[in-house]
Amino acid sequence: MSLRTRLEADETLISAWSGVPDALTVEIVARQGFDCVTLDMQHGGHNEDSVLRSIAPVLAADKPAIVRIPVGRFDMASRALDFGAEAVIAPMINSVADAKAFAESMKYPPLGGRSWGPTYAFPRHGKGDHAEWLATSNQRTLAFAMIETRAALDALDGILATPGIDGIFLGPSDFSIAWTKGAKVDSTLEDMMETVGAVATRARAAGKHCAIYIIDPKMAGRAVKMGYRLLAGCSEHALIALGAKTLIGNIREAIGK
Amino acid sequence: MSLRTRLEADETLISAWSGVPDALTVEIVARQGFDCVTLDMQHGGHNEDSVLRSIAPVLAADKPAIVRIPVGRFDMASRALDFGAEAVIAPMINSVADAKAFAESMKYPPLGGRSWGPTYAFPRHGKGDHAEWLATSNQRTLAFAMIETRAALDALDGILATPGIDGIFLGPSDFSIAWTKGAKVDSTLEDMMETVGAVATRARAAGKHCAIYIIDPKMAGRAVKMGYRLLAGCSEHALIALGAKTLIGNIREAIGK
Amino acid sequence: MSLRTRLEADETLISAWSGVPDALTVEIVARQGFDCVTLDMQHGGHNEDSVLRSIAPVLAADKPAIVRIPVGRFDMASRALDFGAEAVIAPMINSVADAKAFAESMKYPPLGGRSWGPTYAFPRHGKGDHAEWLATSNQRTLAFAMIETRAALDALDGILATPGIDGIFLGPSDFSIAWTKGAKVDSTLEDMMETVGAVATRARAAGKHCAIYIIDPKMAGRAVKMGYRLLAGCSEHALIALGAKTLIGNIREAIGK
Amino acid sequence: MSLRTRLEADETLISAWSGVPDALTVEIVARQGFDCVTLDMQHGGHNEDSVLRSIAPVLAADKPAIVRIPVGRFDMASRALDFGAEAVIAPMINSVADAKAFAESMKYPPLGGRSWGPTYAFPRHGKGDHAEWLATSNQRTLAFAMIETRAALDALDGILATPGIDGIFLGPSDFSIAWTKGAKVDSTLEDMMETVGAVATRARAAGKHCAIYIIDPKMAGRAVKMGYRLLAGCSEHALIALGAKTLIGNIREAIGK
Amino acid sequence: MSLRTRLEADETLISAWSGVPDALTVEIVARQGFDCVTLDMQHGGHNEDSVLRSIAPVLAADKPAIVRIPVGRFDMASRALDFGAEAVIAPMINSVADAKAFAESMKYPPLGGRSWGPTYAFPRHGKGDHAEWLATSNQRTLAFAMIETRAALDALDGILATPGIDGIFLGPSDFSIAWTKGAKVDSTLEDMMETVGAVATRARAAGKHCAIYIIDPKMAGRAVKMGYRLLAGCSEHALIALGAKTLIGNIREAIGK
Amino acid sequence: MSLRTRLEADETLISAWSGVPDALTVEIVARQGFDCVTLDMQHGGHNEDSVLRSIAPVLAADKPAIVRIPVGRFDMASRALDFGAEAVIAPMINSVADAKAFAESMKYPPLGGRSWGPTYAFPRHGKGDHAEWLATSNQRTLAFAMIETRAALDALDGILATPGIDGIFLGPSDFSIAWTKGAKVDSTLEDMMETVGAVATRARAAGKHCAIYIIDPKMAGRAVKMGYRLLAGCSEHALIALGAKTLIGNIREAIGK
Repeated sequence: MSLRTRLEADETLISAWSGVPDALTVEIVARQGFDCVTLDMQHGGHNEDSVLRSIAPVLAADKPAIVRIPVGRFDMASRALDFGAEAVIAPMINSVADAKAFAESMKYPPLGGRSWGPTYAFPRHGKGDHAEWLATSNQRTLAFAMIETRAALDALDGILATPGIDGIFLGPSDFSIAWTKGAKVDSTLEDMMETVGAVATRARAAGKHCAIYIIDPKMAGRAVKMGYRLLAGCSEHALIALGAKTLIGNIREAIGK
Repeated sequence: MSLRTRLEADETLISAWSGVPDALTVEIVARQGFDCVTLDMQHGGHNEDSVLRSIAPVLAADKPAIVRIPVGRFDMASRALDFGAEAVIAPMINSVADAKAFAESMKYPPLGGRSWGPTYAFPRHGKGDHAEWLATSNQRTLAFAMIETRAALDALDGILATPGIDGIFLGPSDFSIAWTKGAKVDSTLEDMMETVGAVATRARAAGKHCAIYIIDPKMAGRAVKMGYRLLAGCSEHALIALGAKTLIGNIREAIGK
Repeated sequence: MSLRTRLEADETLISAWSGVPDALTVEIVARQGFDCVTLDMQHGGHNEDSVLRSIAPVLAADKPAIVRIPVGRFDMASRALDFGAEAVIAPMINSVADAKAFAESMKYPPLGGRSWGPTYAFPRHGKGDHAEWLATSNQRTLAFAMIETRAALDALDGILATPGIDGIFLGPSDFSIAWTKGAKVDSTLEDMMETVGAVATRARAAGKHCAIYIIDPKMAGRAVKMGYRLLAGCSEHALIALGAKTLIGNIREAIGK
Repeated sequence: MSLRTRLEADETLISAWSGVPDALTVEIVARQGFDCVTLDMQHGGHNEDSVLRSIAPVLAADKPAIVRIPVGRFDMASRALDFGAEAVIAPMINSVADAKAFAESMKYPPLGGRSWGPTYAFPRHGKGDHAEWLATSNQRTLAFAMIETRAALDALDGILATPGIDGIFLGPSDFSIAWTKGAKVDSTLEDMMETVGAVATRARAAGKHCAIYIIDPKMAGRAVKMGYRLLAGCSEHALIALGAKTLIGNIREAIGK
Repeated sequence: MSLRTRLEADETLISAWSGVPDALTVEIVARQGFDCVTLDMQHGGHNEDSVLRSIAPVLAADKPAIVRIPVGRFDMASRALDFGAEAVIAPMINSVADAKAFAESMKYPPLGGRSWGPTYAFPRHGKGDHAEWLATSNQRTLAFAMIETRAALDALDGILATPGIDGIFLGPSDFSIAWTKGAKVDSTLEDMMETVGAVATRARAAGKHCAIYIIDPKMAGRAVKMGYRLLAGCSEHALIALGAKTLIGNIREAIGK
Repeated sequence: MSLRTRLEADETLISAWSGVPDALTVEIVARQGFDCVTLDMQHGGHNEDSVLRSIAPVLAADKPAIVRIPVGRFDMASRALDFGAEAVIAPMINSVADAKAFAESMKYPPLGGRSWGPTYAFPRHGKGDHAEWLATSNQRTLAFAMIETRAALDALDGILATPGIDGIFLGPSDFSIAWTKGAKVDSTLEDMMETVGAVATRARAAGKHCAIYIIDPKMAGRAVKMGYRLLAGCSEHALIALGAKTLIGNIREAIGK
């Protein structure tokens, strides 16, 4: 079932967040109980080659692949789709112009200006009918605009009204930095919570899907109540650190040291 | 003999189109009967590293290397030349501004603003004389602007008049999408053929080289008649699929199954 | 359906033969009409890492993966199975001692001495039950001993009688060199055909599966009549060369040059 | 402090067990609370290149690097040391001959036959004095012979008496398979525990260090009581699976689904 | 000691200049007597992945890592810092707008718009305190704007006045091309020396650090007198060529040929 | 001109010695003034994949490629030739049995047992005629047995008499360790010089080519007088260290610090 289908059914989905640009590591992550896997090219280590190679094991695990591109790298948004991703997250969409440029790269004409060439996506999705692919791609793929600055907040109505933008993705750490004018980084900053909630409310009112990065699991409950449905997080750094702490703890306990 | 020399002699050249970012695969492709090899970074899987590594086997096979960059990635146009490519194809040159930015990245001053540093190109081309390289590079390298939208068509005169643009490259699939306002993708769409021909006519009249992507070999004859001289296509996907179909067919025939 | 199941049903299978150590290239090959894909570490370029990474796309294409190890590298036979391969082909099995060492690496006790640790094979095959894996693996996996020298011919009865050897794989090029004492290399050497047939007859009589490398498709019909059922060949070198020759030919014909 | 120093002080050490052949993944693992990191080339995915590249981040985290080689790949034992590893674990040391061959590859003359050439180990360990390196290496490096079959058990005295063997490493899964003649794989098989303990007792009596693979943390306490001091385990597969299970569980609990 | 601390103490530093995108090669370079290592993504072969992997050995050698990004690739400036670099050099900063975009990518709010996510930098620098990292990063990291065109010279005051720009980096080859309007490339062009000196004078007057690329060692003395303190150069191409010439010469002399 | 041709003309050749498993680094080394390039898999970092990829730039620089395999890895000797190497150096050939196993892997029948499959070597050497390749390969390729222990010295006559062994390669560091029974490592140990000379004398008398590893250039003159003609050394570590020391020295001198 596609990401869009599940989100339109108002399901809540958990996405892993891969920052290790290695297809074998992604293969392991993709086999866990996540609903989908995001490959992070902004702060994570993914690159053009690792995205191309790592989408394969995500699809092999029968899950949608999402790619977060670096700031302003809309060339890579198109490429991620050509490689088989189902959704793209663009950071720092701070204006309507940013949103338009992002949408332009994500959607085929007449909605946008995406160029044709699904060389890898085609066989990976078992498709062969060009006409069908062209007719359905704009609907199948999802463009998430990251809302994480005051400028983005100011431009929110325009961003939500931009044709081709399918959802918003709230970056709470950057949002907290913006909110405090650089004084704090705190993904659960109480001060900004009302606004974080309002963003979801406005986005849903505009018919858009709402996604958010979750660092503290407790925030997950609150986010879902606010209307966020795609909860992303759980990088390899976090997974390995937690696994190691637990296992080492268990062994140390067993040996009494 | 350089790409430019052969094109100026009005020869018709066939370029392979590599989308597999692996130097060994490119080495095999480069040994076939193509006149040159294009490494595709837009819809193909090539990336900065694979381009750097894959130009080597193309030159070792004594053929010119061409690189198609992703949309708007003019930083990579310069780098492709620094790595030893002889030509660069830039997709979605939809305005004179696009053409200027592309030319700026391809040509040294005073024609453009390309930065100096042919670290890899120098030894790969067996050169050592900086002064000669500076004096001859703008002439030796070729900048192909892709014409594949209605906007590009509208701006064609200006694009052709942009100093530093050496040729146009028609993308027939995207052009068909543009022509039909998103309704069809068909690289041999009859409706647009007159315009496809006119682009070549106008480009040649402006003293520019004409290249085109060929999916259906039959289109090749028509394209040459229109004035196109660089015929690109034949991706690894296409080559392997055709080879496999033929060989498997031959074996199945031999064993009667 | 497993390789063994299909061979036991006396089906004739065609295996691609990958020599390019790159998972993306293998992914393309695996999507063609072959029944299975062999990754060649002897004369092809595959290595430990590429085998680990390339088995994934073969399984994703829902096909069995086979690995040919280098001469005497039985450590790699075990590893190939741990990575998810279903069969291993060992070259130059020239004595019963060779066959025993090979079988030892392929089968768990008490049949052999394979060491436990299917870290990658487990999740790749969607398995989680260790007891079942241990109980079924010796039956599920296939060990093919290459018969390609006079010594192997002399030792054939012993090789066929070695517990854990599931089949033979005839290497016709090396066999022709052996047959002519180094004078000729010819995979369809008429002189040796009776013996090539006799090897299959004896192997089948011993309840073993028969595989052979096919260079000339015409040989396929003959091989099947002899009793060979796994027909391997079709390297990327061959596929790309054939595809390129055909496509370039078609284009040249279309343009009349 | 070196591995040997800590083991000679009878400390109990926990080693991570890396099976993902990627230096960035190893870097993350090496930063966790483990005492050392083992790179597994037998059942894990490590290869010559990944070992060379992954020892660097382990040393950068100021921890000893250990390499488990594939069965019989003593060429790689020497190379692991040349790359900067401090210890090597050799699987399936089933005879005195195996132990001798392993020791030969691990120790410089006159103790063994290791060849000179610490190109990478030298700078990585900040060394420059060849004479000192030669004089101290045999003492500094540790050769662990895996005891995991009945044959190994039968040959244990001879293996322990082999000059150059510094310790044993018990492989409990394979040992359980051997113990049950292929009927079971169970790293905590009660039946074999007395023998597992006896191996440690005999090894320590012979002045050798004792290591063991730990799957179930509870076994750790028992192993330490038996005399095992190097407890290895915690692969990336295990760490990521445990981390994912915990984090997903926490999120699902928070959102009430 | 940080790069900034040393530069503020008016020390003169020599940076190696890596153009080979391979972490092992960078590891060797980083062990030599340089004060820091620059990874070049503009004319050198470094890419996103090689930068991520190569910063590790530079830090392991206890030296600051610097990254030169391709023209206009400010997304990569942020990423280089997230991967653990201490400074970034941006080529072709030809206007105040360029300088502002560069600074925006280098500094957290309120100074710039850098996004939060130091996933790799954190553990690599042994940090764990987010608040401290946020509070100190803008000060700790260095943004070097390359001055290498006439346009840059014209805009110099504005560039120097741009908040977040910490220094300038003079590119003498491109500057000579600009100075001669494309007629010459000569990093020690006498004609431009007065201006090269004036750039340093003006930059230092504005409280900025001055860096320059050195091809001819003799230029180093002159540059230091002008006020340049970070002297970069010494690519692998140069190092290997010089080493080879010397060693081959010594051998040829020894054998008398 | 082939390595054999030049050695048979009694020319003295200098081989670079690559230990960095990266084709781009090898490309730079191959462009220097060496007569040939050896890729070291024993103490250097080369592996199966890097050898396959790095032979290409050596051949592109129009030089013979040599591969040193790890101890006992004769499977890799055959593969190195299949990848396009012209010579293989095998370390630790300590007995006639070792020499025979090595020769077996290097030569086609009837001289040895090398298996057929020059997939990469063929196109890389521009060959297409199988019969010619088979007929000429045993003569064209060179097998160098390393003489570096007392056992090897004792077995020297037998090694030299082994059909298929084309030359010896003296490893002076290991030889000094053997000579001093582990007390010293010194490639120019005066004590052993008479024997080092005698090895060459005996080898030449048997019609074999003589190669030696050179660390100290002064040793080169002496070695040539002894009869050694292939002088190998000059690793990237050595080249970069020497280049860096010289360049940094020149800069420090220029700036007076």
